[in-house]
Amino acid sequence: MYICKVQGKCISTIKNKGLQGLSLVGVQKINKTGDVSGEIIVVVDPIGCSVGETVLVTTGSNARYALNDSGATVDAVILGIIDSYDFNLMEE
Amino acid sequence: MYICKVQGKCISTIKNKGLQGLSLVGVQKINKTGDVSGEIIVVVDPIGCSVGETVLVTTGSNARYALNDSGATVDAVILGIIDSYDFNLMEE
Amino acid sequence: MYICKVQGKCISTIKNKGLQGLSLVGVQKINKTGDVSGEIIVVVDPIGCSVGETVLVTTGSNARYALNDSGATVDAVILGIIDSYDFNLMEE
Amino acid sequence: MYICKVQGKCISTIKNKGLQGLSLVGVQKINKTGDVSGEIIVVVDPIGCSVGETVLVTTGSNARYALNDSGATVDAVILGIIDSYDFNLMEE
Amino acid sequence: MYICKVQGKCISTIKNKGLQGLSLVGVQKINKTGDVSGEIIVVVDPIGCSVGETVLVTTGSNARYALNDSGATVDAVILGIIDSYDFNLMEE
Repeated sequence: MYICKVQGKCISTIKNKGLQGLSLVGVQKINKTGDVSGEIIVVVDPIGCSVGETVLVTTGSNARYALNDSGATVDAVILGIIDSYDFNLMEE
Repeated sequence: MYICKVQGKCISTIKNKGLQGLSLVGVQKINKTGDVSGEIIVVVDPIGCSVGETVLVTTGSNARYALNDSGATVDAVILGIIDSYDFNLMEE
Repeated sequence: MYICKVQGKCISTIKNKGLQGLSLVGVQKINKTGDVSGEIIVVVDPIGCSVGETVLVTTGSNARYALNDSGATVDAVILGIIDSYDFNLMEE
Repeated sequence: MYICKVQGKCISTIKNKGLQGLSLVGVQKINKTGDVSGEIIVVVDPIGCSVGETVLVTTGSNARYALNDSGATVDAVILGIIDSYDFNLMEE
Repeated sequence: MYICKVQGKCISTIKNKGLQGLSLVGVQKINKTGDVSGEIIVVVDPIGCSVGETVLVTTGSNARYALNDSGATVDAVILGIIDSYDFNLMEE
């Protein structure tokens, strides 16, 4: 899983029926220095996060398991909101 | 999932039977600045997109689920057309 | 899926029984400028391609589906021969 | 699998029910020179590792198999503690 | 699959029961020039390879299939020993 920051909403009207009713947001991974970096990943947000929130994201086949909806056609989902982390490298 | 731009068609005559009847297009991911970048991914287009259109792409085992065709042998599919996105980093 | 160029044969005598009878070739992805680049991927060639041929490659669990052989232990397979592609970025 | 170093704990209160009761830690891969590098991966720690410990990490669908808990919604898990490794490249 | 060079053994005593009895080695991919490069991958060696040997490695869910042991919790396995390869790019 990855620690990511929510960057904004992503709107799609013409879409696969396995995405109907699901909220899509764009996120970026948080790097060693606590800043966002790298490519934008579009993930399902089942929680209702705000822009700027720090979240835990899963990708791959686990995303479908996490939604617990066998009809969902997704490969990336927010698993939770991160309260805090204390990584060694942050202190170096 | 990733936000990608459709770059053109990809034609294959001699191919796996699990690809018969499926339209193949080349896409590239859209990066932070809104430009395309990175490698070309060949994806199934079940919608009939135009070149230059902004689309949502899924990869991996989810692609087969999204097509809802157990005989399809694909690992990347267009899930929908992106109407808009408002990502924080675009405003920085 | 990716557009790749066949680079040569790969011979293995002592190997997993799920690879018996399968032809292995090394390929590289074709980049934006039409040249090959990046790492060598060893893929199963069920078609009998020539060196230098442009092919469509799938990776991951889809490779086993594409071979339609439940005993095959492979993670990358040639899905077809690419006749042509007309990607925007090629014209830039 | 990858050799990683445990970098610290990651706390999430609002989270997917498939993560309830699982300890989450951040790890980084150990590179050729024995130092950590690259992005932070959040993994389930079923062993109870200390910060700084060298561990073996699996990612992808295998993570669910390794936990042996069909309800777990995880894509990265610590498989064991690394006692030692003697890699050629370390001596170069 | 990838062509890799075996770099050494990796010892773990406290480990997942799905790894019991399996030999773990560290490998690196062989690049275009025939040299090793990139990160260290820990793989199961069901053959008994020597350090320096050139091997074929599979990753992902296929690794479990290749071991033919439903209890194995692995994501990377040696599929065979590479006798030879004749890649175009080597001659460039």
